[in-house]
Amino acid sequence: MKNIAILGSTGSIGTQTLDVIANDPEQYRVTGLAAGTNVDLLVRQAQIFRPAKVCLATKAAADQAAVLLPPGIEVLHGCEGLDEIAAGTGSDYVVTALVGSQGIRSTMAAIEAGASIGLANKETLVTAGHLVMRRAAEKGVAILPVDSEHSAIFQCLNGESRRTVRKITLTASGGSFRDKTRAELEGVTVEQALNHPNWAMGAKITIDSATMVNKGLEVIEAHWLFNAAYDQIDVLLHPESIIHSYVEFVDHSVIAQLGWPDMRIPIQYALSYPDRRPTPTAPLDLAKLGKLHFREMDYARYPCLRLAYEAGRAGGSAPAVYNAANEVAVARFLKGEIAFLDIERVIATVLDAHAVCELPDLAAIAEVDERARLEASAV
Amino acid sequence: MKNIAILGSTGSIGTQTLDVIANDPEQYRVTGLAAGTNVDLLVRQAQIFRPAKVCLATKAAADQAAVLLPPGIEVLHGCEGLDEIAAGTGSDYVVTALVGSQGIRSTMAAIEAGASIGLANKETLVTAGHLVMRRAAEKGVAILPVDSEHSAIFQCLNGESRRTVRKITLTASGGSFRDKTRAELEGVTVEQALNHPNWAMGAKITIDSATMVNKGLEVIEAHWLFNAAYDQIDVLLHPESIIHSYVEFVDHSVIAQLGWPDMRIPIQYALSYPDRRPTPTAPLDLAKLGKLHFREMDYARYPCLRLAYEAGRAGGSAPAVYNAANEVAVARFLKGEIAFLDIERVIATVLDAHAVCELPDLAAIAEVDERARLEASAV
Repeated sequence: MKNIAILGSTGSIGTQTLDVIANDPEQYRVTGLAAGTNVDLLVRQAQIFRPAKVCLATKAAADQAAVLLPPGIEVLHGCEGLDEIAAGTGSDYVVTALVGSQGIRSTMAAIEAGASIGLANKETLVTAGHLVMRRAAEKGVAILPVDSEHSAIFQCLNGESRRTVRKITLTASGGSFRDKTRAELEGVTVEQALNHPNWAMGAKITIDSATMVNKGLEVIEAHWLFNAAYDQIDVLLHPESIIHSYVEFVDHSVIAQLGWPDMRIPIQYALSYPDRRPTPTAPLDLAKLGKLHFREMDYARYPCLRLAYEAGRAGGSAPAVYNAANEVAVARFLKGEIAFLDIERVIATVLDAHAVCELPDLAAIAEVDERARLEASAV
Repeated sequence: MKNIAILGSTGSIGTQTLDVIANDPEQYRVTGLAAGTNVDLLVRQAQIFRPAKVCLATKAAADQAAVLLPPGIEVLHGCEGLDEIAAGTGSDYVVTALVGSQGIRSTMAAIEAGASIGLANKETLVTAGHLVMRRAAEKGVAILPVDSEHSAIFQCLNGESRRTVRKITLTASGGSFRDKTRAELEGVTVEQALNHPNWAMGAKITIDSATMVNKGLEVIEAHWLFNAAYDQIDVLLHPESIIHSYVEFVDHSVIAQLGWPDMRIPIQYALSYPDRRPTPTAPLDLAKLGKLHFREMDYARYPCLRLAYEAGRAGGSAPAVYNAANEVAVARFLKGEIAFLDIERVIATVLDAHAVCELPDLAAIAEVDERARLEASAV
């Protein structure tokens, strides 16, 4: 039985992680849950899964939850509460499904506590990959990808020697605007952007999918997770999202992982690894699908992806700037402050003005992040 | 360095095996070559690869070769010569690429000698799977599949636990007549049948591809190689032959192996396993392909595949009868004695008349084989 804490339990990945756990209750015990301000859902989750500790973002939310929770559950709040869920629940396993750059500190805390990490927070590796991967190796802690693309690559590498990998290809659906030209993107609305063709996800990641920033972050993550050079990482447009990603080896043999677009499969794999367990998901039926399509990635159509490669290759603090500028730009787009195509303009402008710091520590990353956010708010 | 003997060195698999070896000469040494009656090619191969021993099918061919070969190469012939190449060359590895049921005896001899087997002879497992797999396990000998489909499954199972396999799916191009209806198959010629859309192979296997007997034999082989029940083995029509086969696990995650249809990739994998080595083959380009197609298998369109499942499920001597009847029927079709659709009629008739013997030894298999051939010649 694995003792599992979930950071970000009321989000899309968090709730699906609890679905997976509920489906196989003899394998897992929930030890801690951390959420933002969704008190009602956190309380319902705590009633079902009975963690020892829960955490909410603010004291007000924590006080509100305290009166609703079953007795015996400790209620924490804020950054310190989050650290306590990550490192103070005696968990062997921590799912880090917080959105945005706040996930790094608690992921590091969980690694220090010796827990395996089910990593769903993209920013952790994007901004602090050099710190996180080194510390995880030192502590002998496994970083297990939850994202469907990285889970696919991780599965394709099972039993293979890393030195025989020639290329890693991440597939991309193309997002909600994949059939629009650059010109047609001029006037798109927030509602249109939030309508992803294959995956039901949160707002931020759905916009990142349409701009291909999401894929850019995944490229940088893949660099860290699989110790791959940027020249070894490709992106391929695959509208159906059935081939989740693949690895080409030196003998030109390709191993791919496929499935319906259902996050419960990679989430469960990260939890059950190295075992595989039955899921309530549907088995893949290629005959029913009939066809799979592939198109070369168009970096002119998706400049945000090109910028991600540039930030990744620049290294050091550049990916943190890319990420922070994008977070602010997406928030501004969702608020109606800027147009869809301004997202790439904001990222490019902020990144362009940044002088790379080579091996930033967490404090330096936070500083760079803050400055990039300020700049991204103003351009 | 691996010491390798090749049984059937002048055939399609044999010559491609030598291509692979020539491309990576520091990994492999050729210790023995056995061919049928293609003296010229065997002599050229022996001049290049300098095996200690060679074998031809007949004394006449061996005598002819003896005067042409470089000095110091021992020239053998017939069944005993074949056994000597399989078991008397001190090889750690024997590629069994003989066509037809004659491959069993020499494969068994190589297993007895403790050599790993690169298995390209389908009939070995089809007719004697119960004997071969048991003896290989007892001797601690690896049976490495050379066939692209089984190599794919074997690669997909790397690092995975066999008890988590839910289903194995073998893909089938559909062969040279895949776009013809049953009615249109009535008058097809030998030339049309030999025109395979994706793979350049020998005549027998090209016909077997058009009748789907080839896939039927592969289903029976997969049963033995991967210890899979027939209900766990599926066949899917996939005209492009890019996804060579795949495995679905209990969590509904699918791992597939892909590549251009080039036999040198699976041949090399069988030789280099567990390592992977660079090949001179082309890397796969899915964007260039653009699309992959899949269709449900139609067992009414391909009754020979249905018959293979029936023979496999009946077990014992039934698959040997299926195979022998088919060999004779294909030979008769190639000689113009019977029509294309008579192949299935011959197999069905001979199989229908057969009383299954449950655990036949090699002598019983040979007897069953002979009787089935006689019957198949007469119906």
